[in-house]
Amino acid sequence: MNETVTVRGFIGNEVRTITTDKGLPISSFRLASTPRRFDRERGEWVDGETNWFTVTCFRALAQNVRTTVSKGDPVLVTGRLKVRQWANDTGQRGTSVEIDADGVGHDLTFGTGSFIRLGGQPA
Amino acid sequence: MNETVTVRGFIGNEVRTITTDKGLPISSFRLASTPRRFDRERGEWVDGETNWFTVTCFRALAQNVRTTVSKGDPVLVTGRLKVRQWANDTGQRGTSVEIDADGVGHDLTFGTGSFIRLGGQPA
Amino acid sequence: MNETVTVRGFIGNEVRTITTDKGLPISSFRLASTPRRFDRERGEWVDGETNWFTVTCFRALAQNVRTTVSKGDPVLVTGRLKVRQWANDTGQRGTSVEIDADGVGHDLTFGTGSFIRLGGQPA
Amino acid sequence: MNETVTVRGFIGNEVRTITTDKGLPISSFRLASTPRRFDRERGEWVDGETNWFTVTCFRALAQNVRTTVSKGDPVLVTGRLKVRQWANDTGQRGTSVEIDADGVGHDLTFGTGSFIRLGGQPA
Repeated sequence: MNETVTVRGFIGNEVRTITTDKGLPISSFRLASTPRRFDRERGEWVDGETNWFTVTCFRALAQNVRTTVSKGDPVLVTGRLKVRQWANDTGQRGTSVEIDADGVGHDLTFGTGSFIRLGGQPA
Repeated sequence: MNETVTVRGFIGNEVRTITTDKGLPISSFRLASTPRRFDRERGEWVDGETNWFTVTCFRALAQNVRTTVSKGDPVLVTGRLKVRQWANDTGQRGTSVEIDADGVGHDLTFGTGSFIRLGGQPA
Repeated sequence: MNETVTVRGFIGNEVRTITTDKGLPISSFRLASTPRRFDRERGEWVDGETNWFTVTCFRALAQNVRTTVSKGDPVLVTGRLKVRQWANDTGQRGTSVEIDADGVGHDLTFGTGSFIRLGGQPA
Repeated sequence: MNETVTVRGFIGNEVRTITTDKGLPISSFRLASTPRRFDRERGEWVDGETNWFTVTCFRALAQNVRTTVSKGDPVLVTGRLKVRQWANDTGQRGTSVEIDADGVGHDLTFGTGSFIRLGGQPA
């Protein structure tokens, strides 16, 4: 199955955009989300540990994200979760946690804005 | 449990905002989402039936939604699903399907925009 | 988009199974889920209003659900949410909230059991 | 926010259970989920890369999972996603992807079974 996931968080770096040989734009950014949980012993809500994701956007979404969002912005992201094991030439190994985004938007819980409709199709 | 749900769709009417006796702003709008499914017999993607939701926003999110989104806009909404049975004085009964929104944003798949950070706290 | 939703709840009636003209088995049942929310004024967790869903299962899942689950059982259900407006011949109208199930299982939070693997394929 | 996620997959190892000093049972297992995606160029569905998760269960769920599920079993898991960065004494660093499970059950898409209700409370 596809693990769909939605994250509300803050953008941790500037958006990076590349264009593939076939002309496909791809934008990516890091996203930080800090859960809140109710601490039964203390009787109050506390911050949990921050989750970090790498968000990847394709096509029209990649272009619009590049021109519209910036480091520090609060956003909603929904997409498919990818847990990837990687290894490089020097023998290092690791795990990356990515979201292939279907939709991205500024979170209006934290501000206002404007929107200009373009001819984009669903990613 | 709480059923969390994320919907990407289009706003079907103008946002309505009320303020409660205690000064709590509440905004609501109708949201239409049309699923795509792969038709095995026809060998192509086709539209499914549209899902309609009533989205309800509270506090800072209610205020920012009121000033920022309009009928026809493409948005992402994430929140808690509420399936409510209702009956009115004239004996009518029905079911409403609501989302108590935690976050709302314009879907950058379909356009660009700007964003102004305000001091809002998570809803 | 498809709204995927996961519900943990209790089965509200006996499972009904039909077989279509083409030999496709379809099982359905009602599922009740009661959210818990933290009441800030009272400083404690309280029950919210119960959400009711109609869950529909197809093919191998339909057959296995028919023989394995019963009224009152605690289950997990994941699938695609369908909000349907209906009208019948007598002029009545209404809204049904269905989940086309991709997976169903007894919730081991509430008990133990056994499992026999059959040759079913993903629905 | 909390990232809730639901995974349908297969258990990759035997369940490990420990008991904390305070008598809290904790069970964990590895879960593999392989997404299916439609390959537009080939015009058919193909397997994507497998996602691996570490699932952690607490209290009654931990006990019932220990006695009921085994390596290779198809299960549904729903819970809160945790992306953790770790480092150990020897200077190694890495990322773990965990799900703190709220519910676990055998996936009836793939088989039948039995269920015995115990007095467990929601985790």
